[in-house]
Amino acid sequence: MKNKSAIVLLSGGQDSTTALFWAKKNFQKIEAISFDYGQRHKIELKAAKKIAKIAKVKHKIIRIKEFEQIKNSALLDKKLDIKKKHKLDRKLPFTFVPGRNILFLAIAGSYAWTKRIKNIIIGVSEVDYSGYPDCRKNFINAFEKSLCLGLDYKIKIHTPLINKTKKQIVLLAKKMGVLNLMKYTHTCYNGNKIPCGVCQACKLRAKGFKNAGIADPLK
Amino acid sequence: MKNKSAIVLLSGGQDSTTALFWAKKNFQKIEAISFDYGQRHKIELKAAKKIAKIAKVKHKIIRIKEFEQIKNSALLDKKLDIKKKHKLDRKLPFTFVPGRNILFLAIAGSYAWTKRIKNIIIGVSEVDYSGYPDCRKNFINAFEKSLCLGLDYKIKIHTPLINKTKKQIVLLAKKMGVLNLMKYTHTCYNGNKIPCGVCQACKLRAKGFKNAGIADPLK
Repeated sequence: MKNKSAIVLLSGGQDSTTALFWAKKNFQKIEAISFDYGQRHKIELKAAKKIAKIAKVKHKIIRIKEFEQIKNSALLDKKLDIKKKHKLDRKLPFTFVPGRNILFLAIAGSYAWTKRIKNIIIGVSEVDYSGYPDCRKNFINAFEKSLCLGLDYKIKIHTPLINKTKKQIVLLAKKMGVLNLMKYTHTCYNGNKIPCGVCQACKLRAKGFKNAGIADPLK
Repeated sequence: MKNKSAIVLLSGGQDSTTALFWAKKNFQKIEAISFDYGQRHKIELKAAKKIAKIAKVKHKIIRIKEFEQIKNSALLDKKLDIKKKHKLDRKLPFTFVPGRNILFLAIAGSYAWTKRIKNIIIGVSEVDYSGYPDCRKNFINAFEKSLCLGLDYKIKIHTPLINKTKKQIVLLAKKMGVLNLMKYTHTCYNGNKIPCGVCQACKLRAKGFKNAGIADPLK
């Protein structure tokens, strides 16, 4: 894959940062895109910017206004308590933004077409699955097919972390020599730079480092 | 389908207007959404608003900023001549906005999930096909699957016009008694209220009315 170009979806979190460096190793030319979608905490966009700079990767933040207009998730409404159950569907966590990755990948596809890029990398994992259906392989496969047909353009969505546990993602970062950069990543749903330890995202992060037997450089 | 609710994607053109009235006949409760995506001519949004009002249907215009940021199509750049060939891919018409329906359907899916609506109606046709791959049935089928998987939610995308020629679409509007409303629809890529007769969209519209043996009420 070394002579190909790719777009990496970079949220500024641990997984997408690991995916970014995986992409750096596997593609000749990469660029990162992040989405300012009205999320509660802009701290993750700052993290993405910093990480892209360190990785020496071109970085574009795309502003999207749809979710705010649809107003449908706790992540978008600061007045709501993140710990509460989702009102609409109890099977899904309250933090679920319906179709977030669907929208992100749709935009990435359009961007890739425009730039004649054939590869998209997204750092989703269906292990340690936290209730987001658009992080699963069957969705990614279906969406890749949708993009190819809808754009009449051969495009591949790579998911290097899809089968990895949080522990394995930590170990991959270590293996690639970028573990130290995890101190710049943002995880906490409550917007804390230092993990709150209470929200689901922080709990998962802590579990990964603990099981890998490595101290979180963010602490 | 009478006891179900549905969302109709309403562009303000002839096809989506026909699809809106088809939906009114086939669903109990419908609402329409339109997209303000930085298109050259706001006249089509005004048309959509007027048509939704006449149809007595709830209407929401969703502002999306991605395409302007990606800057990738003649429709979004007033300085470019619409008649010129697309610079990036000669197989596709210059008016192609890559992934427009992909993005529209992604947003419609998110909106549907939030409102617990299970049906989306889009007035695409793969007959009289003008080079838009995201108007074809194979794309719609793949995308429907993507939405169901990515939202973990059973959703159906209806394409009542998919196999219809422009002539048949005119005849369907006539059969439903809404032919006269076609005077409120907008078609012209050059932004003329009265069809310019030169752009591809106006040519297709004219062909449909001519083949149906009916005068275009817009003229």
